[in-house]
Amino acid sequence: MEAFRELCDLLGQADDLRRAADLLEWDQETYMPGGATRARARQVATLRGLAHDHFTSERVGRFLEVLRGEELNPLASDLVRVASRDYARACRIPSRLVQELAAAASRAKDTWQRARQTNDFNLFAPHLERIVDLNIEKAEALGYDVCCYDALLDEFEPGMRTAEVARLFAALKVELVPMVRAITACESPPYAFLHEQYERAGQWEFGMHVLRAVGYDFMRGRQDESAHPFSTTFSISDVRITTRLSEHNVASALFSTLHEAGHALYEQGMDLDLENTPLAEGTSLGMHESQSRLWENQVGRSRPFWVHFYPILQEHFPSQLGAIDLDTFHRAINRVAPSFIRVEADELTYNLHIMLRFELEQLMVERKASVGDLPALWDARMEEYLGVCPPTAAQGILQDIHWALGAIGYFPTYALGNLMSAQVYACARRDLPQLDRCMADGDFADLRTWLRLHIHRHGRRRSAAAILAGLDGGALAAEPWLALMREKYGSLYGIQL
Amino acid sequence: MEAFRELCDLLGQADDLRRAADLLEWDQETYMPGGATRARARQVATLRGLAHDHFTSERVGRFLEVLRGEELNPLASDLVRVASRDYARACRIPSRLVQELAAAASRAKDTWQRARQTNDFNLFAPHLERIVDLNIEKAEALGYDVCCYDALLDEFEPGMRTAEVARLFAALKVELVPMVRAITACESPPYAFLHEQYERAGQWEFGMHVLRAVGYDFMRGRQDESAHPFSTTFSISDVRITTRLSEHNVASALFSTLHEAGHALYEQGMDLDLENTPLAEGTSLGMHESQSRLWENQVGRSRPFWVHFYPILQEHFPSQLGAIDLDTFHRAINRVAPSFIRVEADELTYNLHIMLRFELEQLMVERKASVGDLPALWDARMEEYLGVCPPTAAQGILQDIHWALGAIGYFPTYALGNLMSAQVYACARRDLPQLDRCMADGDFADLRTWLRLHIHRHGRRRSAAAILAGLDGGALAAEPWLALMREKYGSLYGIQL
Repeated sequence: MEAFRELCDLLGQADDLRRAADLLEWDQETYMPGGATRARARQVATLRGLAHDHFTSERVGRFLEVLRGEELNPLASDLVRVASRDYARACRIPSRLVQELAAAASRAKDTWQRARQTNDFNLFAPHLERIVDLNIEKAEALGYDVCCYDALLDEFEPGMRTAEVARLFAALKVELVPMVRAITACESPPYAFLHEQYERAGQWEFGMHVLRAVGYDFMRGRQDESAHPFSTTFSISDVRITTRLSEHNVASALFSTLHEAGHALYEQGMDLDLENTPLAEGTSLGMHESQSRLWENQVGRSRPFWVHFYPILQEHFPSQLGAIDLDTFHRAINRVAPSFIRVEADELTYNLHIMLRFELEQLMVERKASVGDLPALWDARMEEYLGVCPPTAAQGILQDIHWALGAIGYFPTYALGNLMSAQVYACARRDLPQLDRCMADGDFADLRTWLRLHIHRHGRRRSAAAILAGLDGGALAAEPWLALMREKYGSLYGIQL
Repeated sequence: MEAFRELCDLLGQADDLRRAADLLEWDQETYMPGGATRARARQVATLRGLAHDHFTSERVGRFLEVLRGEELNPLASDLVRVASRDYARACRIPSRLVQELAAAASRAKDTWQRARQTNDFNLFAPHLERIVDLNIEKAEALGYDVCCYDALLDEFEPGMRTAEVARLFAALKVELVPMVRAITACESPPYAFLHEQYERAGQWEFGMHVLRAVGYDFMRGRQDESAHPFSTTFSISDVRITTRLSEHNVASALFSTLHEAGHALYEQGMDLDLENTPLAEGTSLGMHESQSRLWENQVGRSRPFWVHFYPILQEHFPSQLGAIDLDTFHRAINRVAPSFIRVEADELTYNLHIMLRFELEQLMVERKASVGDLPALWDARMEEYLGVCPPTAAQGILQDIHWALGAIGYFPTYALGNLMSAQVYACARRDLPQLDRCMADGDFADLRTWLRLHIHRHGRRRSAAAILAGLDGGALAAEPWLALMREKYGSLYGIQL
């Protein structure tokens, strides 16, 4: 076991470096003074580079090779397996390419911001071209069986393949597009009251109350404000979230808080013996997103949840909500309306935004569309899927930061997470028949424990597919999510879906 | 210049690692959730260890050797000189000893906290013995001409020698002890009003106002609360301070804010071309402390300063201070009274606390006193220098964390800083005859610029001795500080000193 201990020390150092870089970034988004941007960028780059060098060192490779041939206990064996996968991946990408991607992303990010401000896609286009080229080069370096996009997708959703995503999305689309049309034809529920003026202090207080109730552990985490909500992990004992308070949109902070809490509960729920190893992470981005969506949508947009919390929210905002009854509120926070911006989309139309991006990404990396074709493709598919066409590039193709950061193959995990959340939630309801009643009492202990037991505590020891199989809920499919949507929105809008 | 650029890259990486460790520690003292202590200790240790490894790598040594033989521009030449000194020092201490000291300090710190809580010096004694032993070993490894303590002192106050400190302190003591006696014989000015209830929010606001007025740059820094006030630097563009608000002691936060601002102005004032190099630090702890003390005592406890700020403070706290006039307030914040605790000591008695520690440290590392003898020696010297004897070990020998952290040779720099502050301030007044008038108008720009020009901007390019010589204020001496004290306290207490 000497080799295993030495391996753990080396991997632990790489992990400490990476987590320190994460703290540098958290600090940048929350408390860092504005003048420090340049120095901070250098510090983050240094630490990320050193973390990569440490992880891909020859010594790590040698220990992994030795240990793969040995009898190990189950935890050690999982660690060697997962670390070997990461190691092989990391070593396949030449350092030069890592640096070129980082440099291209850094330039692209700056330009993207200016392009978005000025609604000028042409400004961003050459940067996107460069990022597509480098991603194709990366995919070739990584290798793949069927298509280039497989290699990219695999980074974010290990084991998932492009064809499988395409199959799932096709099954979704065929039902979802008419479903959204049918709902859009109905009269909109009243929702203007969500956009009155809501004092920020009250929103913060209510959010903190909800966080405590769902079981986010403040001894091992904290919430702060930032321009874009996110969650980040420095250790299993230090998982932080941020939120954004909007004075004229009470739903925004509320659901972002629940969303980030879902991510954080995953990370806080890992077994402590995974600490400081490559196993102490979500098993895939899709599974991670399933946890945030489960708390945001399945729990947070349910009627039982608000049976408990709505009176408390009303107490915080009597003048805005005193005259609004529970059902009206519940309908308003579940209003479906096609819109331009992904992050503001409702639960139902959200996946259509993702499909569009998935399709465009494939066209780009398979050289079936040039970057110059994208704006027209974007607008045409928005029209086709959602029946709306963004008036500006900023509200269309320039809205997301992901491509500017160099990430292609990331978007599909959002929709996969939505599908998983429905599948996982259906299994939880099966195992916890009292769940709705507990939620109406503000008691989330059973659900949290169930999630921890089946998903959180394993970290990366079990793949997303193995977790779903273990729940006996079948392989990942579109139908459970569609069934949930049909039931929920059929009832909310009083129509047959 | 290829070698110089490569050296800068390597030193820059070591610097980035160290600053990241500093951020991990800042976060621990300000925002980190309580449950994360253990993981954070590991992360800090990893980053400090890697920073040390990077700095002492053979490549750094080779580049330094090559560059010492080359013609360099003045900045590069200073950098190579300072880095060579650090490198030689760091390489002389074996890694094993670094680790043993860190481990001993980690254990000692925990035990020291318990020992202080239970007033039990015997609990701490074996840890202190170990730390003394390791410090002696370190001094032997570093080497010295005259005495072991020289090697330790040199880490904190480069170029300073034990005999010189002893000479300065002897000159101080002979005047200071009777001076304190004479003042203690006088009637105490009224000061109870400083200890009424002062709302924390008002204290915070006033502190922020003062920080802006003295020119602390919030674009390149911020203030937070912590259990013990400190300042810390992540880059020249990110120098942060903390303060502690005490509801029943309005002077505490106020002077700690000014103290830390003094440290921070030094770091914010460095030339930007020193960024990410070993030159971007205070040239010695004594010089650093001179800056904090200058703003805390020479400026902050002066009458002109309060001519401007007292009406503002009164506005914040009308019920507590409305009936107290400026002179009464000024006398209260300058009240001299022997006390047990160093960090609460007034300007005049403070140096006596330091002398006592300096003498005890020397006795320990020269094996002239055993750790078991220390409590009795402490009490006897408190009686001799200050005329008071601490009733408990917690108020005596167990009060400071420094020894528990493994630092011996650090304490004298506090008193050296006090002496330097008087000498520097005398030169500033000579060069800025309008200084008192400016302060009374709340204008500190000239003083700040003067300090920046003569001290701050140079970082470690000039030694403390060279800075003092450059000011044409003579070598470091006790007399300028004593003269200032005689003048100030003679006038405040209406006696001849």
